[in-house]
This record gives sequence, structure tokens and C-alpha cells, in this order.
Amino acid sequence: MLEYVTAADDPRLTDYTRLRDVELRKSLEAERGLFLAEGEKVIRRAVGAGYPIRSVLTTRRWLASLEDVLGDATVYVVDDATMTGIAGFPVHRGALASMERLPLPAVETLLEGGARLGGCVRRLLVLEDLVDHANVGAIFRCAAALGVGGIVLSPRCADPLYRRAVKVAMGAVFSIPYARMDDWFEGLSTLRKAGFQTLALTPDQTATPLDTVALSERVALLLGSEGDGLSSHWLQEADEAVCIPMSGEAMAAGVDSLNVVAAAAIACHGLMRST
Amino acid sequence: MLEYVTAADDPRLTDYTRLRDVELRKSLEAERGLFLAEGEKVIRRAVGAGYPIRSVLTTRRWLASLEDVLGDATVYVVDDATMTGIAGFPVHRGALASMERLPLPAVETLLEGGARLGGCVRRLLVLEDLVDHANVGAIFRCAAALGVGGIVLSPRCADPLYRRAVKVAMGAVFSIPYARMDDWFEGLSTLRKAGFQTLALTPDQTATPLDTVALSERVALLLGSEGDGLSSHWLQEADEAVCIPMSGEAMAAGVDSLNVVAAAAIACHGLMRST
Ligand SMILES: C[S@@+](CC[C@H](N)C(=O)[O-])C[C@H]1O[C@@H](n2cnc3c(N)ncnc32)[C@H](O)[C@@H]1O
Ligand SMILES: C[S@@+](CC[C@H](N)C(=O)[O-])C[C@H]1O[C@@H](n2cnc3c(N)ncnc32)[C@H](O)[C@@H]1O
Repeated sequence: MLEYVTAADDPRLTDYTRLRDVELRKSLEAERGLFLAEGEKVIRRAVGAGYPIRSVLTTRRWLASLEDVLGDATVYVVDDATMTGIAGFPVHRGALASMERLPLPAVETLLEGGARLGGCVRRLLVLEDLVDHANVGAIFRCAAALGVGGIVLSPRCADPLYRRAVKVAMGAVFSIPYARMDDWFEGLSTLRKAGFQTLALTPDQTATPLDTVALSERVALLLGSEGDGLSSHWLQEADEAVCIPMSGEAMAAGVDSLNVVAAAAIACHGLMRST
Repeated sequence: MLEYVTAADDPRLTDYTRLRDVELRKSLEAERGLFLAEGEKVIRRAVGAGYPIRSVLTTRRWLASLEDVLGDATVYVVDDATMTGIAGFPVHRGALASMERLPLPAVETLLEGGARLGGCVRRLLVLEDLVDHANVGAIFRCAAALGVGGIVLSPRCADPLYRRAVKVAMGAVFSIPYARMDDWFEGLSTLRKAGFQTLALTPDQTATPLDTVALSERVALLLGSEGDGLSSHWLQEADEAVCIPMSGEAMAAGVDSLNVVAAAAIACHGLMRST
């Protein structure tokens, strides 16, 4: 169903307006249970993964490329200037879709796996309080590409369905199952009960080098936030603290950790040796 | 020397104004031979690495933390609102320094190494036409942390001294020597003449898996751009095309490559096995 809209402040467009304000968006999205997918490819993957479309915002030019995925969704058609005015940035490939979130599985359910979740999870990433959406998206992409079966988020970790994360993940946020802990303090005990070996990744070079760790059947890698790294609570709770060796010279020059995406990539690659 | 400035459009501040406009900044910075360092830590590292300060822009609150590095540089002191007005974003730790660029070494000089460049380079990254400054910065950080001795940029690769790259690199752009090729077409022959084995990193899963490659004494890893990857010219010129194995399922779900930072991280880590 097409609706032509000419005013950027048209009340039908509230899902899309005020995209500029990150804080506002975050609460609005959670409250209304929606998220935004940008560009034809990402919209297509979200629909393929079963997320229902609330509506689509696009321009005449990009309408045709989307036609076959739209079903009976409401489509708001605007001109280019209105589009940019609404979004506050040049919209990738001229289309934004407002999608409904699906309920996340409980952590226990994710760990059990089962057909709908792509079988039994053997390799898991656990992200504690990451703040940067691009990092979360990039880690999802890495995890998917490197055979990780699922991702668990701490209660305060940045949202993988936030627009920037979805974009950077290249759709991997739709293909890799994930869940969010309710309880940060007791979070790791759920993993241990499910038989996961918990490895805390830390730049601390006195920890066990990743490549020398004896891996169990089920392994969970814990990654810490961009600024402070893992909390001391999780570092202590984990079965083992492990590090990726870094160059002594670099550390002397003040480069004393990898960014969290680089660390995740190396660690996921390292896990592949046993699968 | 302190100068108090009250108007955001004061002509003394032209090094800092119009920071919002990426394109404009890029040409201005190159033209004037300057770059911007943000925050006390980064400014300190830039000065430590020998880059001369043109001037500093800060607020009263952050002045004290910088005093010992300023020498006789001109310092423009503004209030918080003017600071944000000039930069167009909240400035990290309230200080921006306009620094003078130093002449880059020629590629040949970089490869020879020598004391000033931190000795003989055995492990090299070569970046072809990367466009994202955050990726370039993150790769510098990775390379430094993982013992890579130098970085060579293709003629059109994004500038490591652009503000966002400097910030993400956590100062590694000052500690790792780098050079820029004049000639993209003949670029790899210089490396080969210096005895480097050139390995072209590609997501193509029919290439040799990275972990099985026999490494020479001197190794150069070639990384391609975010969108299209390596040019076919470089892919063909390289001694060998190598890949990081990815999960078959992920590829089926449309995740068909790693982001370039993740690929760089895994590859640099892989090189450490022989050093
Ligand atoms: C930027 S680092 C955090 C730095 C923080 N100052 C610290 O000491 O943990 C973000 C996360 O990346 C991972 N990480 C970074 N460098 C690492 C290394 N060399 N080995 C293992 N993990 C690393 C850790 O999980 C860390 O919590
Ligand atoms: C985002 S990828 C480019 C994707 C592009 N479609 C292609 O086919 O090359 C950017 C760069 O990261 C590196 N890269 C990404 N995935 C890789 C993998 N699995 N193995 C080796 N290198 C990879 C390559 O150097 C590539 O040029």
C-alpha cells in the first residue's frame, strides 16, 4: 500500500523522525519494540529472518528494487530532500524499513539450541557492556563468518539492532542467534551450568596465551568493554583468563590493548582450530 | 603563549574551523600540511614522536593538563560552547592541537629500515585504497600491537593522520613507520625488489589458507578496500593469494567476508607464529 508523504513532520512518519538523536532513538526503539533496517539488502535479510515489516520509507527511485519483499506493508514514498531531512544523514540506497522486534530467547534456551536456533551451540561469545554499536555489529559479522554459534549480551551491552550495528554487521545480526542476560552478577553461572568453559579475554600479558589453552567441547569467550575491559567480577568468575600476545615494543609505546573487534576476530579464529 | 578568543569565526582559528566538512578538511589538511590531534594523551604522543605543534585550542578547564607539553606553542583558550561550536562535535577531553606533518619516508627507505625507523622491517602491511578512516586507524593499532614493522599505503588509501584515524589508532599512527606509494601500478615491484614475499589477502575460499602458508624472512600482507577488496592487478601480481577460512553456513547466509580490520587482526596474529 503506497502513501505519498510530502511533509517531514507528518505524524505517520514518527518511526523515522528524530533519527539524529541517539539517546532518544534508543529508548523509542525499545519502547515501541521496533528497529530500523537500512537499504534493500539488509531489509531483505531481516524479512528473510522472519522480522515483520511495520512500514517502509523510500523514494520513487528505490521503490522498484523492494517491491517483491514488501508484501502488504505500508510504504511511505517521499522525495530525496524529505528523506534526508527526516533521517538527518544520506540514507543508504534510499530505503529505511521500520521492523518489529521478535522476542529474544532466554539465555538457557539459546544455549540448548535446537532446530530453530540452528542446532546445539558449541562456541559462544559473551559481550560485557560494549558501548559502541559499530563494534557490536562488527563482532556479529566476525562471529558469523568464523563459525560461532551464538552471542550472549550483558544487560547493559549496546543493542545489536540499533541502526548502525545492523549496518556494520552486514545482516549477521539476523543470522546469528543471541540473547540478553537479565542478571549480570549471576550471568556466568548459567553458562557454567550448561557446561561451557568460560575464557575471559584480557590484554593482561601474564594471562594464559589463547593458542595454548586446552579447549573443552563447549567454549564461551568473554569480551570486555572498549574503555575498561572486563569487570573484575567476571574476570574472577571465569574458568581462565586468556590473552592474545602483543608486541613488547608496542606496549612500551603505549599501545597496550587491541580494539575489541580485533581481539574478537583473533579469538574466534583461534577457536576454529578445534571444530 | 595564551590568547583568549571569544568568537568562533575568529580568523586565528582557521586551522580548527569547519571540522564538520570531511571533504573540505581533507584537502585543507593536505594543503596546509597539518593534522589535528584530539585530547591530551594523543597530543602528548604526537609531540613525543617529534611532530611540531602549530597551535592548541582548548578550554580553561583542560589547560593545566597540557601545560608541560606546550613549550612556546600558541594556545587559544575558548569557552565550552565556542569549542563545540567550532568543532561541531564534543571534543574529547577538551583539547585539539593543530600539528605540522613531517615528510613521509620513501617506500624504499621504509623497507630498508635503519635506526630512526626502528630497525629492519620484516613484517609489513600494505593497504590498497581503504576509504574508512576508522578502519585505517584500527589497523595501525593492530599492527603496532602485533609486531608489524611498517605500513605502506596505496596512493589513494585514506589518510592515517585524519582526525578520526588518529583517535581510533590510540596513537599508533605515531609509533609505526609508514610510507605512501607514488605509483599504484608498479607499487608491488618495489616490495619484491626488497625481498618481500607478497601475500594477497582475499575472502576467496579457494585461495591458500593463511595458516598453511610457508612464510619467508620478509612478508608483506596486502589488504583490500572495504567494498571491492583488492584490485585484480594486485591479486595477480602478488606471490600468493591467501584466505582466512570462514564458516560455510555463514557464507550461505550472506556473510561472505570479514571486515578489513578483523582480517588484518587475524593475519597479523598469524604472522607472529614465525617471529
Ligand atoms: C580495548 S580492550 C579493553 C582495554 C582495558 N584497558 C583492559 O585492560 O581490559 C576491550 C576488550 O578487548 C579484549 N582484548 C583487547 N586486547 C586483548 C588481548 N591482547 N588479548 C585478549 N583480549 C584482548 C578484552 O576482552 C578487552 O576487555
Ligand atoms: C570487506 S573485504 C572485501 C570484500 C570484497 N567483496 C572481496 O571479495 O574482496 C576487505 C578486505 O578484507 C580482507 N578479507 C576479508 N575477508 C577475508 C578472508 N576471509 N580472508 C582473507 N582476507 C579477507 C581482504 O583483504 C579484503 O580485500
